[in-house]
Amino acid sequence: MKQRIAISGAGLVGSLLSIYLARRGYSVTVFERRGDMRKKGAEGGRSINLALSNRGLRALEEVGLAGEIKKVAIPMLGRMMHDLQGNLTFQAYGKEGQFINSVSRSALNTVLMNAAEQLGVNFQFEKRITGVDLEKTTLSVQDSKPEAFDLIIGADGAFSVVRGALQITDRFNFSQDYIDHGYKELQVPPGLGGAFQLEQHALHIWPRESYMMIALPNPDGSFTCTLFFPFEGPASFQKLNTNTEVVTFFEQMFPDATRLMPTLLEDFNTNPTSSLVTVRCYPWVKNKTLLIGDAAHAIVPFFGQGMNAGFEDCRILNQLLHYHRDNWDHVLPEFQQARKKNADAIAQLALDNFIEMRDLVADADFLLRKKIEAKLHELYPSKWIPLYSMVTFYDEMSYAHAYDIGQKQKRIMDEVMKTPNLESTWLHLNLEEIVSKLESS
Amino acid sequence: MKQRIAISGAGLVGSLLSIYLARRGYSVTVFERRGDMRKKGAEGGRSINLALSNRGLRALEEVGLAGEIKKVAIPMLGRMMHDLQGNLTFQAYGKEGQFINSVSRSALNTVLMNAAEQLGVNFQFEKRITGVDLEKTTLSVQDSKPEAFDLIIGADGAFSVVRGALQITDRFNFSQDYIDHGYKELQVPPGLGGAFQLEQHALHIWPRESYMMIALPNPDGSFTCTLFFPFEGPASFQKLNTNTEVVTFFEQMFPDATRLMPTLLEDFNTNPTSSLVTVRCYPWVKNKTLLIGDAAHAIVPFFGQGMNAGFEDCRILNQLLHYHRDNWDHVLPEFQQARKKNADAIAQLALDNFIEMRDLVADADFLLRKKIEAKLHELYPSKWIPLYSMVTFYDEMSYAHAYDIGQKQKRIMDEVMKTPNLESTWLHLNLEEIVSKLESS
Repeated sequence: MKQRIAISGAGLVGSLLSIYLARRGYSVTVFERRGDMRKKGAEGGRSINLALSNRGLRALEEVGLAGEIKKVAIPMLGRMMHDLQGNLTFQAYGKEGQFINSVSRSALNTVLMNAAEQLGVNFQFEKRITGVDLEKTTLSVQDSKPEAFDLIIGADGAFSVVRGALQITDRFNFSQDYIDHGYKELQVPPGLGGAFQLEQHALHIWPRESYMMIALPNPDGSFTCTLFFPFEGPASFQKLNTNTEVVTFFEQMFPDATRLMPTLLEDFNTNPTSSLVTVRCYPWVKNKTLLIGDAAHAIVPFFGQGMNAGFEDCRILNQLLHYHRDNWDHVLPEFQQARKKNADAIAQLALDNFIEMRDLVADADFLLRKKIEAKLHELYPSKWIPLYSMVTFYDEMSYAHAYDIGQKQKRIMDEVMKTPNLESTWLHLNLEEIVSKLESS
Repeated sequence: MKQRIAISGAGLVGSLLSIYLARRGYSVTVFERRGDMRKKGAEGGRSINLALSNRGLRALEEVGLAGEIKKVAIPMLGRMMHDLQGNLTFQAYGKEGQFINSVSRSALNTVLMNAAEQLGVNFQFEKRITGVDLEKTTLSVQDSKPEAFDLIIGADGAFSVVRGALQITDRFNFSQDYIDHGYKELQVPPGLGGAFQLEQHALHIWPRESYMMIALPNPDGSFTCTLFFPFEGPASFQKLNTNTEVVTFFEQMFPDATRLMPTLLEDFNTNPTSSLVTVRCYPWVKNKTLLIGDAAHAIVPFFGQGMNAGFEDCRILNQLLHYHRDNWDHVLPEFQQARKKNADAIAQLALDNFIEMRDLVADADFLLRKKIEAKLHELYPSKWIPLYSMVTFYDEMSYAHAYDIGQKQKRIMDEVMKTPNLESTWLHLNLEEIVSKLESS
């Protein structure tokens, strides 16, 4: 008889995971507290589009879905920085052929759910889980009688109900850390005939030191802008209370974007101000219950890796199932041990990248540093890979390894940046010499 | 009309706080989920005795209870280290007249509850709080109708129910971190005629590098021993499964103590193995609800400051109430802002001190370092105060300040310890020279 697995959460990770498990022959039921987004449309409070990069694509590829997704994805080749005067600076993400993809959350989720249903996955919508028994591996849905499964997987996001059950067991380490910034989504509509009113193949950034706005393109020619802004303080959501204050602020700080936002006030007043949390916990496994994706490691969005990390979880879990011939007693402990350090690494990288995006990308020294790194990568393609590239494009390299190498490279670049007449000499730097000098010191 | 305050938890902090508030004229109700310990005896799973030091004593003094407590307290003048052969080394905690006090948790709690009841505090035992409404400031007890108060204070410990209500509000930062060690209490009974079988006026330590046992004296001549031991690993609770394994381990590692423990096996098999958690969170205030003591900042016991920090919370809260003439709108934000950094500091100091107690106190270099520090303190009594003394005896100095100075002194001592011929020269060291040299470098 088929083993029965319950997944809590029909979001991106829960849906992809159900596909992996159905393909392995499990009987999979997915419980989702919201309605079917394919019928009702997406609910608010979650980002509209996402950056899909190599790790996520690879996990989709292994279940044969990368092609379908790529068709509706918009490649973003680099960052387009907008200064206060509306001047643009473009910075490529990688080498030729390396890019990230703007995808619609709802389109992606729809593809995944449809594919899962074709494999026999049973989606139960509007079913709120009200109890998880970790000893008996049972789930209660809306206070009905507990139902037993062979395995329960919590893919139910940053505020996971399944994690709630682990959280009250002894010796469960847990933290939730909010940053001081919240976010609000705003729209730039398509131009005449569906034209993109900003460069289509870029992720746009308006870096303003202590805060920023970004914009990602949508297939209909619109852009979804996200303002990342402090909740409190001199420049903050708290200070924008009247329509005049909102418009004045936008016209002053994002003049070029504001001209393209006819519904600015409506968006600002209607859309929620959401908070940003990092969740770390351990263990992820208790008996026959497992946490995965955001439920195990919610991160801030500034490296564009939240979904990609969750998809990678699914791929690695599948790999371990294959290796251990579906012996979960081996798979579960190995999975959490293998993934925890990577989850911690990308959580920290995501926090660090906020500073880079909102502040440093507008800094001349920083841009020079990036140029030098790109040059080093060109000269020593396998020995020096910029951190952003390792995380985004090198899916064979773990987040933890990328983090460690990134730290090392940062120390080297700190030294390099102290070189006198740096701008005129950096082209002649010898990487091997720098590295060996640094390692001997 | 009197303002009505509900306190969750009739433990040490809840009881002392009720006294402070009743003295200020508030109508105070304390809800406690356990029975009245004065009638039923203490429940298991909590330490039997505690180290009361200056911060705690000062908070008791201000409500006129220090004298009564001191009568039943046993002064501990220093650490008595027991090596594998049973050889003893004594290390004074401070200068003459500086000591900490072994007190019985239940005796102290009884004194506090009796004093509170005399002031009109209403204790409600066996009343489990099942709901807290942070908007309406209401409490539900065992699913009864919500009752409104002017203020709710959660003094309900590391697993606070009141904190649970804050925890699900947006932007509440929270962490619970368990260490790899658990603890188990064991007894050394009194000798003939109630004689103390170990030195009475000391805190005994059997430091064994990766773990330790300690013992505190009780008024009846007995000692309560606590084994702090890893849950898993080569030497761990997990490895002690049979009576033979337990006895062999104790006879080998704590031979002198084991001879004094006739009920070792019974104690070991009956008493629970408890875990040790650090809880950090923020904010501590939401509308008219406040967290205090362990509910806001549970720490590990290795600096003997958990209760002392909670008592200091009560004293500082009272000071702010006095200063702001009981205007809680000013008191609550100031309280959390003032205390959070101190809570974080003592949490870290407590974690650090475990390493010192279990490992370093048996280290010759460390003992020399302590001797040098004691000498420096003698020479420059106001300029150099050892960290342990600042935390334990200098109640005017905040934990956060003690932590900062401790870090600075540690850096200086690291340099001092590199001095050639240290042992013969340290008496001639000039502190001012060292400090100025270090500060200029």
